[in-house]
Amino acid sequence: MLPTTPRVSKVITVLSGGVGAARLLRALSQEIDPRELVAVVNVGDDLVLHGLTICPDLDTITYTLAGLNNDELGWGLRGETWRVMEELDALGGEAWFRLGDRDLATHLYRSQRLADGATKTEVTAELCARHGVRVTLLPVTNDAVATEFVTDEGRMSFQEYFVGRRHDVVVRAIEVTGAAAARVTKEATAALEGATRLVIAPSNPLISIDPMLQVPGVREVLRARREDVVAVSPLVAGAALKGPADRLLCELGHDATTLGVVDFYEGLVGTWVIDEADVELSEAITSRGVAVEVTTTIMADPQNARRLAKVVLG
Amino acid sequence: MLPTTPRVSKVITVLSGGVGAARLLRALSQEIDPRELVAVVNVGDDLVLHGLTICPDLDTITYTLAGLNNDELGWGLRGETWRVMEELDALGGEAWFRLGDRDLATHLYRSQRLADGATKTEVTAELCARHGVRVTLLPVTNDAVATEFVTDEGRMSFQEYFVGRRHDVVVRAIEVTGAAAARVTKEATAALEGATRLVIAPSNPLISIDPMLQVPGVREVLRARREDVVAVSPLVAGAALKGPADRLLCELGHDATTLGVVDFYEGLVGTWVIDEADVELSEAITSRGVAVEVTTTIMADPQNARRLAKVVLG
Repeated sequence: MLPTTPRVSKVITVLSGGVGAARLLRALSQEIDPRELVAVVNVGDDLVLHGLTICPDLDTITYTLAGLNNDELGWGLRGETWRVMEELDALGGEAWFRLGDRDLATHLYRSQRLADGATKTEVTAELCARHGVRVTLLPVTNDAVATEFVTDEGRMSFQEYFVGRRHDVVVRAIEVTGAAAARVTKEATAALEGATRLVIAPSNPLISIDPMLQVPGVREVLRARREDVVAVSPLVAGAALKGPADRLLCELGHDATTLGVVDFYEGLVGTWVIDEADVELSEAITSRGVAVEVTTTIMADPQNARRLAKVVLG
Repeated sequence: MLPTTPRVSKVITVLSGGVGAARLLRALSQEIDPRELVAVVNVGDDLVLHGLTICPDLDTITYTLAGLNNDELGWGLRGETWRVMEELDALGGEAWFRLGDRDLATHLYRSQRLADGATKTEVTAELCARHGVRVTLLPVTNDAVATEFVTDEGRMSFQEYFVGRRHDVVVRAIEVTGAAAARVTKEATAALEGATRLVIAPSNPLISIDPMLQVPGVREVLRARREDVVAVSPLVAGAALKGPADRLLCELGHDATTLGVVDFYEGLVGTWVIDEADVELSEAITSRGVAVEVTTTIMADPQNARRLAKVVLG
């Protein structure tokens, strides 16, 4: 099954990481026809564990758009059970990366389809169809890309850093193995080139968005289409709502504020959407030749999420 | 973790398939110190599905010796749940090969350990240790071997034939891919060469035992040690207790009786243990220069199983 080709004349394409992007996509899909919405999704945190290919960002978005996301945990499926993990733990297996029973079915499905020769793009479309997700989800590449961390305690995979160490270790560098040789899929290229508007989701710039920008062609499209690019700041008053974006920005020599993120994306964004808490940064941002919209970027409240979606689309 | 090297001077080594072998091993382990019992186990029905390496015969024996086997189903674990399969089925995945939730943990564990560089022999020892199994289980080889079926409807993998088609298709030939190039493990070689007695379990001769005999070195040890080899017939009055042994023997040009099995193992067995129902075959068997013991070979009843074990050891 190939992903449905959206009518590109009206498409909004969102560069997406996990949770923050999923929430923005959900809000956007309530404002416009979901079939006019495309997510180009990071695969830098994908991993192979227990022989299974796991795509955390794609799954988070799929589950969220299907209304199946577990809000209590902030990841995985609601009403999840943990039979397999309990037994794996009892066997002394690697149970640190929690995979619920229903979630595991997704990974079994994907792993078998990939073994059958399907691409990640095709498998994603199949899973979305099964879950009734009408937004088009496109992994940025079908090639293997792995975000890795050079830390004071050695090199770590994404999930070792993020889950195993709960991102509590000093990072000296982030390297995206395979990115330079990876090819953007033709579907993702079409979605980036053909969209009426490109959106950078409020995902972690360093570990969700940058791994996509490192795939040859992606940064170039954004640069060329800068005026059509709207970015939502992932920071509010210098803090990430979730995850280590602020800490990582700091450790890697950036300013851990919305302004730091603006500079990180220099030359790629035409309009910034920032939180009211950061209103005093507006002038500094506009002085960089970039438009600014101020609203509430915290999407916990559905009304706020809706307002944010309207601003992004407006 | 390396498998414990048994004191070879007193070891009984059993060439083993799945269910029938598991029952015999359980009975034997109640008669002698389990540490003096070694199973050299078929890996021809091992498969990779959903990215997971699954070893049905090794798992059946492990679960049976651990007292965890599901007697109602005849496979898998007791008290099993099916959350993952239910969801995989809902996703349209390949749910025909039923993998219970707890059972899946075994396959996740094994797949990760193999990916870590452990051998199948090492992983088997780890799983046995976790389950308190003191019999030593040794896959005959750590190399990939796959029993395949040439049928009237094309070539099939073991599990397509056995589970997918419920062995209800005409078989023209059985081929064990990889067997000729596979190497017997040093542990299995030691167990075969050093045992005081070698036992061929009442497993399917064509699809459980023969794939092991095709691995260079195994048949040769049995031939050289023929007088120490005791075989338990898998047929009773021309019928297999479980599975398609009788039908397959017939389809592949053998006599579907205990005598057919005796001839199939020609030159490899010193003593045959046959069921009382086949007592009239005793003379024909002894006329082939092979000793015969007659007892009940049906192990459903624990008393019978115990009697069979005593005969095998006696």
